[in-house]
Amino acid sequence: MPAAPSQEEIRRQNLGALLRYVHAHGPSSRAEITTAMGLNRSTIGALATDLANAGLVSEGAPRETGRAGRPSPVVRPESERVYAYAFSIEVDRVRAARIGLGGVVLDRREAPHDRGVVTAADTIGPIADLVTQMHRGVAANSVCVGAGVAVSGLVRRVDGLVRLGPNLGWVDEPLGAALRGSLPVDHPISVGNAADLAALAEHVRGAAVGCDNIIYLYGDVGVGAGIIAGGRRVTGHGGYGGEVGHMVVRPGGHGCGCGSRGCWETEIGEAALLRESGRHGHFGHDAVLTVIDAAARGDIEAKEGVRHVGDWLGFGVANLVNIFNPEMIIFGGGLRDVYLAAAAQVRTRLNTMALPACREHVRLRTPGLGDDASLIGAAELAFEQLLTDPLG
Amino acid sequence: MPAAPSQEEIRRQNLGALLRYVHAHGPSSRAEITTAMGLNRSTIGALATDLANAGLVSEGAPRETGRAGRPSPVVRPESERVYAYAFSIEVDRVRAARIGLGGVVLDRREAPHDRGVVTAADTIGPIADLVTQMHRGVAANSVCVGAGVAVSGLVRRVDGLVRLGPNLGWVDEPLGAALRGSLPVDHPISVGNAADLAALAEHVRGAAVGCDNIIYLYGDVGVGAGIIAGGRRVTGHGGYGGEVGHMVVRPGGHGCGCGSRGCWETEIGEAALLRESGRHGHFGHDAVLTVIDAAARGDIEAKEGVRHVGDWLGFGVANLVNIFNPEMIIFGGGLRDVYLAAAAQVRTRLNTMALPACREHVRLRTPGLGDDASLIGAAELAFEQLLTDPLG
Repeated sequence: MPAAPSQEEIRRQNLGALLRYVHAHGPSSRAEITTAMGLNRSTIGALATDLANAGLVSEGAPRETGRAGRPSPVVRPESERVYAYAFSIEVDRVRAARIGLGGVVLDRREAPHDRGVVTAADTIGPIADLVTQMHRGVAANSVCVGAGVAVSGLVRRVDGLVRLGPNLGWVDEPLGAALRGSLPVDHPISVGNAADLAALAEHVRGAAVGCDNIIYLYGDVGVGAGIIAGGRRVTGHGGYGGEVGHMVVRPGGHGCGCGSRGCWETEIGEAALLRESGRHGHFGHDAVLTVIDAAARGDIEAKEGVRHVGDWLGFGVANLVNIFNPEMIIFGGGLRDVYLAAAAQVRTRLNTMALPACREHVRLRTPGLGDDASLIGAAELAFEQLLTDPLG
Repeated sequence: MPAAPSQEEIRRQNLGALLRYVHAHGPSSRAEITTAMGLNRSTIGALATDLANAGLVSEGAPRETGRAGRPSPVVRPESERVYAYAFSIEVDRVRAARIGLGGVVLDRREAPHDRGVVTAADTIGPIADLVTQMHRGVAANSVCVGAGVAVSGLVRRVDGLVRLGPNLGWVDEPLGAALRGSLPVDHPISVGNAADLAALAEHVRGAAVGCDNIIYLYGDVGVGAGIIAGGRRVTGHGGYGGEVGHMVVRPGGHGCGCGSRGCWETEIGEAALLRESGRHGHFGHDAVLTVIDAAARGDIEAKEGVRHVGDWLGFGVANLVNIFNPEMIIFGGGLRDVYLAAAAQVRTRLNTMALPACREHVRLRTPGLGDDASLIGAAELAFEQLLTDPLG
């Protein structure tokens, strides 16, 4: 029950709201912003001027509209000048991007590494190198607001310790601390779970714009979810929520890397598809695509594998729909391909197992931002402080 | 991305925050409120005076503290004067209460009805009678701010239509509309899911005060949950979230009233305990207590029933802990008794199936407000508008 804000806080909130608006919507006329924010024109004008003086936005003439009357100036985010670094630590590579205010990808690099042999410390050198490379392209008057890092695993919110990262073989890897000690970035470095960040990105500028209750399912070897309920991220007490891959759906089922049995990911993860389609000894996203292609060409075993995984995918989705009554489920990573190949099974399970009221408005979708979702979400995390207090 | 509030909105928010503080904490000194809200003393004084002039609080001398210095005036919610009606529609009765600001139960009544034969329309007469009875005790200068209604079932948020209320045999019963047309209450009548409202009540003034990530599990015939994540209710797009009883935990298991099979409630609901302890043909909370008593006295069949249900209770709790990373799980209704009798099984399942990071800070608890939780939560729903805009 906090008190209402003081005068200074109000100005800060309004500056943040305006900057957030153009960050999410791109160049916008003052008239449009005035309507969206519900403030009067002179207030919006003053706020835009303050943000422009701080170098966060620019104001300029609109494109010719052909309409009569004085055109409303357009407020543009200074995407070239104000940027964040975003990193995604993946099982076979590190991806990095420099992303401008407004979500514009200004530069993008990656560094491969061998599967399963990196520690958090091992990733620091490649990340620092990528930053150095990208830094060469940065104009002198640019401002870096911070960095965000996406990693598949249980990330402690307070300090970015990766409690468990099964794909990477990580247990209690101090990723946040290692990066903070090593990167040539003066500003905060935040670490988040890849699925959480993908959900955030899809919510701000992807498939789920305008949806306040969404579940972003990400699957490769493991399966996790980023959940947004009532417009806010559901991350739990320590930041570990969304571990839907370890919802047990098949008591006494296959052993899971977590030590339990019958976890959802043992039926819908990469290994399950390859196992159920008779592709023992194969692994990775390419192998998943090979199975899905084979199924499309009529291969019996591959079809059975896709059917099996699609059926269990729908099974768990139905459970989540009963729990969350979401507007949208987004299938990311390898689950995107599985969903596209087995949409009928998923929908059948959903219709059979989920309560009509819980499922009636749910849309099943693939990511609007593709594989970039978690990288863009990492940048969103990095921009958060600026958007909360633009002149702070 | 709303704009920051205007001057009038700030005053409204501050009035709301102060009133909400004394509503939740009871009589509080101005000094305590000043510290809690982070505003200066003169602002708090002015806000308290405004609320007192509106008859919502009173200010008076504190109890003798024995300390030197001028004592800080105490702000008290006008619990006798400002009240809401709260109703709980249950399978065998309607409960009603008149609850004062601050959560004080001023009056309490109930009307029994036969199990399973009431429609929403059938409940209106008894509820109106209870209101009439309670109204006789109301002082002339009192103010009713509205009414809240708790019902087990899927409640459409916008209008209080009960889409599905299995215990009551309800399908698309227009409870909200029927009450709004019939009750002698001028103010809004809001309908909510009983478990959601119990969670709300436990969060504001029960076992979960200070916990922002909680799951309140309610079980009798059916099983549902009220979920609070990051301090906010997770109710989903239409208001139907929290249907954890229909999370399928046992594929191909017992048939469920919802049409699916193997739903969690088929293993932990009343019927499961009675089935697994050989009590066919029995039903209801008293029968549950009889089984639990028998198990405590060493009855083999009863012990097996309790063990079975406790084990499956822990199974589903582990799933929810992986999904939500909560600080607290509260077991309400018949699940309170099952949990107390089978806490070891529940904890074992949790420790075996939930990820260590997700479960490490979770506390398992029984309700602080007992069976009153949903009734008190219904009043919280009714007070919500007043607490948002006290002078509106």
